Amino acid sequence: MYRTHTCGELRMNHLNKETTLAGWVQTIRKFGSITFIDLRDRYGITQLLLNEKLTEQLDNTPLGREFVITVKGKVSERSNKNINIPTGDIEILVSEFKVLNKSAVPPFTIQDDTDGGEDIRMKYRFLDLRRNAVKKNIELRYAVNRAARNYLHQQNFIDIETPFLIKSTPEGARDFVVPSRMNSGEFYALPQSPQTFKQLLMVSGYDRYYQIVKCFRDEDLRADRQPEFTQIDCEMSFVDQEDILQMFEGMIKSIFKEVKNIDYAETVQRMSWEDAMWNYGNDKPDIRFDLKIANLKVEGKNHFEGLDHSEFAVFNNAETILAISIPGCSDYSRKQTDELIEWVKRPQIGMGGLAFIKYNTDGTLKSSFDKFFNADQLKSFAEFCKANPGDLILILAGREERTRKAISDLRLYMADRLGLRKADEFRLLWVTDFPLFEYDEEGNRWVARHHPFTSPKPEDIEVMIGNNPLIENAEKYLEHPYSKIKANAYDMVLNGNEIGGGSIRIFQRELQEKMFAALGMSKEESQHKFGFLLGAFEYGAPPHGGIAFGFDRLCAILGGSESIRDFIAFPKNNSGRDVMIDAPSTIDEKQLAELQIKLDLK
Amino acid sequence: MYRTHTCGELRMNHLNKETTLAGWVQTIRKFGSITFIDLRDRYGITQLLLNEKLTEQLDNTPLGREFVITVKGKVSERSNKNINIPTGDIEILVSEFKVLNKSAVPPFTIQDDTDGGEDIRMKYRFLDLRRNAVKKNIELRYAVNRAARNYLHQQNFIDIETPFLIKSTPEGARDFVVPSRMNSGEFYALPQSPQTFKQLLMVSGYDRYYQIVKCFRDEDLRADRQPEFTQIDCEMSFVDQEDILQMFEGMIKSIFKEVKNIDYAETVQRMSWEDAMWNYGNDKPDIRFDLKIANLKVEGKNHFEGLDHSEFAVFNNAETILAISIPGCSDYSRKQTDELIEWVKRPQIGMGGLAFIKYNTDGTLKSSFDKFFNADQLKSFAEFCKANPGDLILILAGREERTRKAISDLRLYMADRLGLRKADEFRLLWVTDFPLFEYDEEGNRWVARHHPFTSPKPEDIEVMIGNNPLIENAEKYLEHPYSKIKANAYDMVLNGNEIGGGSIRIFQRELQEKMFAALGMSKEESQHKFGFLLGAFEYGAPPHGGIAFGFDRLCAILGGSESIRDFIAFPKNNSGRDVMIDAPSTIDEKQLAELQIKLDLK
Repeated sequence: MYRTHTCGELRMNHLNKETTLAGWVQTIRKFGSITFIDLRDRYGITQLLLNEKLTEQLDNTPLGREFVITVKGKVSERSNKNINIPTGDIEILVSEFKVLNKSAVPPFTIQDDTDGGEDIRMKYRFLDLRRNAVKKNIELRYAVNRAARNYLHQQNFIDIETPFLIKSTPEGARDFVVPSRMNSGEFYALPQSPQTFKQLLMVSGYDRYYQIVKCFRDEDLRADRQPEFTQIDCEMSFVDQEDILQMFEGMIKSIFKEVKNIDYAETVQRMSWEDAMWNYGNDKPDIRFDLKIANLKVEGKNHFEGLDHSEFAVFNNAETILAISIPGCSDYSRKQTDELIEWVKRPQIGMGGLAFIKYNTDGTLKSSFDKFFNADQLKSFAEFCKANPGDLILILAGREERTRKAISDLRLYMADRLGLRKADEFRLLWVTDFPLFEYDEEGNRWVARHHPFTSPKPEDIEVMIGNNPLIENAEKYLEHPYSKIKANAYDMVLNGNEIGGGSIRIFQRELQEKMFAALGMSKEESQHKFGFLLGAFEYGAPPHGGIAFGFDRLCAILGGSESIRDFIAFPKNNSGRDVMIDAPSTIDEKQLAELQIKLDLK
Repeated sequence: MYRTHTCGELRMNHLNKETTLAGWVQTIRKFGSITFIDLRDRYGITQLLLNEKLTEQLDNTPLGREFVITVKGKVSERSNKNINIPTGDIEILVSEFKVLNKSAVPPFTIQDDTDGGEDIRMKYRFLDLRRNAVKKNIELRYAVNRAARNYLHQQNFIDIETPFLIKSTPEGARDFVVPSRMNSGEFYALPQSPQTFKQLLMVSGYDRYYQIVKCFRDEDLRADRQPEFTQIDCEMSFVDQEDILQMFEGMIKSIFKEVKNIDYAETVQRMSWEDAMWNYGNDKPDIRFDLKIANLKVEGKNHFEGLDHSEFAVFNNAETILAISIPGCSDYSRKQTDELIEWVKRPQIGMGGLAFIKYNTDGTLKSSFDKFFNADQLKSFAEFCKANPGDLILILAGREERTRKAISDLRLYMADRLGLRKADEFRLLWVTDFPLFEYDEEGNRWVARHHPFTSPKPEDIEVMIGNNPLIENAEKYLEHPYSKIKANAYDMVLNGNEIGGGSIRIFQRELQEKMFAALGMSKEESQHKFGFLLGAFEYGAPPHGGIAFGFDRLCAILGGSESIRDFIAFPKNNSGRDVMIDAPSTIDEKQLAELQIKLDLK
């Protein structure tokens, strides 16, 4: 019997109770002849009081931080109460204690504000996980897991495990592969998602499927990507898009309620992909704040008439001119506007410069291009931008794609400066009507924007079937009819992050075959890769659709963090390494020989 | 809107309601000018009645089995009620219907008693999954999953995901490995279990961890093994064996209750490994029935004194003689006893023969070795075997190991013949005090019977540390002190199947190092493979222990089946192939080149 209670449990109503606790030594404070120890476990901290005799014993065999001990004693009222912790009213008058295990001095302090850098904390992740800050994240993750399962269970979803050793069908991202010893020369692949299996389950009649499941992508890792990540993966039959949007905004609201005690009563806003790009320059706009884009000139066409007779070459030569009005910033100093100019010139943003108009609170206007625009012209400029006195209007001009991305980034940057991106405010958004195809410059071909199983909008099916996917003039790919085809696809966006995405699927063999052809796949290739799915579609496939949520990201945002790594118990670094266990690593010749492969290092 | 109700939902209280259903055509029965269709979905079957006009429409565009349709109509009382299905009181008077998708004729019938063989059902697993028999298994699996999670949640366990891309540390079974593109020449391994990670979580202070998680073993597959399988994986800190046994018999009882509505009120029986081997010849005895072994002679030593002066060479030459008394079988015919003799001679059993005594209901005894034993001697033989009149005593003689295994197999075989192994009766058993080591004949060395992290019994630690693991005389390995060391390890057995196994772990670096040494691992090797765990043990590792349940097996037994494959949505065959998706398969040269490996086929 190591303990009768936990370190987070004892209160005034336990006074005089004999108790046994076990845990880690958080701090040791000697006061004259007595000693106070804060004992920590998963549930909290309890103060221990060691009398003179035990303190003497300590002098002979000293305890250290992170030693594991078990103590017996009586619950007693503290003279000096600590209102900051739930057990702060009591302490344990220790009658005996025993060291269960010693601890070396940890390489960083086990505290909320640790002195450990990222690298050392990852190497000693088992110690980092002891810190309250990290523990909270892991507990939040479990709460989200539990809330999602509860909601889906109530909605008649069934958790069905799909296999991890599947077939390599690289489409977009690279597969991790697993050599098969029993089938030499052949490989399994680890799933990038259970996509085809969940569709097969729909063909099987399990009309509401879910799984919280690991997925794998062998991609060059950006700062906040992991080679293995977790999805809440769902699929439903006999549904249209509306059914799915309602079901899953219900799930997220239910998670908000269970995990954060937030009543998200509002209807979740919806926005077409085109509107999102037009107004926010981005397919996952953060709508906690407004700051919409003014589209002054787009792809060579002036929308703001005031540009028609301008003599400002920068504007006249630009393909696209976009602006945002930033409230309360008309009094920015030269230093501040220079800062913004430097910011947009950084390579990550890559703009040549930034023009601006200060719409002063007295109604006057002052721009960085006064030479070319008189007061009236500036006034109508500001009106087009829906600016108000007190606003600073920031204007970017350049090539359409880069300028739109830049204004979107600038919008987020200004919102950060203004404190508009509050970690504890949550705004959901559905972005719908995505393009079905995306232009792949390298291959000069169309690739699936979501994946090849996504259904085109019914009215666009004819456009897809009736036109040759071949792009004759790479420069003018936007004129190809495929660029206009919309998909029955939707993303859920939370605070400017895509937390989930899905689509209504193709469920007819003929249409699926045409989709594969549109993506430049030969009949042989599509049969080799997806023959099982095409085959299944011949035996009564129901209409179906689904969605997958990025579980790590969802947890991070709910936890008020930008980094998913903090919400994964044992994450990998940017090189895909687990530095704690030192994986990946070499394997021995015998293993390679059994697998009938050898290294072929360049 | 594809449906307003499911096919399992409508009852008499829905009479005259307008409804829309969607599902699969189970059967079509034309009666004169009208047509009955059984429409099936996940929730049940509802009868549709198509009037003359719609029946005419059908004649032009016929429906077939497994077509997917949606129908509108009114709920109506059936004249000819079907008491076998919950919707049997009503039918739908169809006003319109629409084919959502056609179906080719399935390669086997989608019915409980299908005409499809195993191979064809695996190839078309998406159709097999439609059959009620399979669907029930998948639903039961989800129910077990849910019940386990609910129990563990109530007990303060927290689900923490451990990584799938880990380090290869083959111990016993082979790892599946995953070449790393970003770290060329290096490999990840897929986990055989999250063992070391859950121990690290204990070091981190998460004192009650669980996960329902996929694990991987690249082994030559026996009939009922899968390369990927699922475990309910649990670990606890500050516990001894008793805490764990109580916690997890609680879990299984809770699963019994939630899933099968069985109140398993009895205390779960416990048995030491030695007793299990002695009385049942097996470390996972089926205790739904008794039929204990009589140990007449063991390893050359007569326990039944009546053998001392026998002149029966078969007995005298045998190392071991074991018997079981089978009630009610004393009247077995010559043909029947011959059958049993043939059975024990099969290569899987491998005995030379079978002796028997018929203890007739009139009290007389008749044996197959009457020449050597007179009536009195037979009587005391029967007494030693605790036989009663009416019993057939079956006796096997031979080498200890083989004979014990054979009598154990014979015991199960006889129980099957007598109908004593009822699929709907559940008997749990803890087997405890397993040997710590197992003799590895090939390497003439000791291997860990459970795994190298299992703690020896405290009283055996000195035996382990104080003796050289080297086995000088392979013949006499049983005389080596290691053969007697017991582990703090336990298995949970259900109806003769090991459904879970675990142990109290080593949590001190020194002892863990000695264990690695006892297993013949060099310091370098243990540091290379498990340095992270040894390191973690230096920073305040708490006493801990855990258990892992074979989730597939548990579900199969609860479903009354011997085969785990029926309880896995997409299982692999005995060659580790998924014949539906045709995996594993070759991958292209580009993938191999990126991974910097090449094939090296023998």
